[in-house]
Amino acid sequence: MNKLSKLIGNNIRSKRKNLCMNQETLALLAEIDRSYVGRIERGEVNLTVDKLYRICVILKCEAADLLPLHGDLS
Amino acid sequence: MNKLSKLIGNNIRSKRKNLCMNQETLALLAEIDRSYVGRIERGEVNLTVDKLYRICVILKCEAADLLPLHGDLS
Repeated sequence: MNKLSKLIGNNIRSKRKNLCMNQETLALLAEIDRSYVGRIERGEVNLTVDKLYRICVILKCEAADLLPLHGDLS
Repeated sequence: MNKLSKLIGNNIRSKRKNLCMNQETLALLAEIDRSYVGRIERGEVNLTVDKLYRICVILKCEAADLLPLHGDLS
């Protein structure tokens, strides 16, 4: 697992929890498999921009809100 | 090709050209196949965040600089 995927996964999880939303609801609304949402949040997948945007719509944020800055990766 | 991929491709191309960099140099430095860089810029691929970040490093920008806002997609 690389640091980028882990940071994105953490950001998605905290945005989701801020909305008091569980993984099942996020998966259903974003039309993503529930177990895949779990893998995304654990930083186990190299997310595509398409799925990133689908998740952003549901979490009511911009893609940039879920993405770490370069400085966060070093 | 969806609008998201096309907008990201356009953003990458214009950042690259602003740096007077050709596709070969971007591909070499980002360690991505040259023809794949062409497909990315034409909006033909669903880019992963890993490749997006590799490109950003070379183009000296943040990922958010290459990503459209939701409003740009409607």
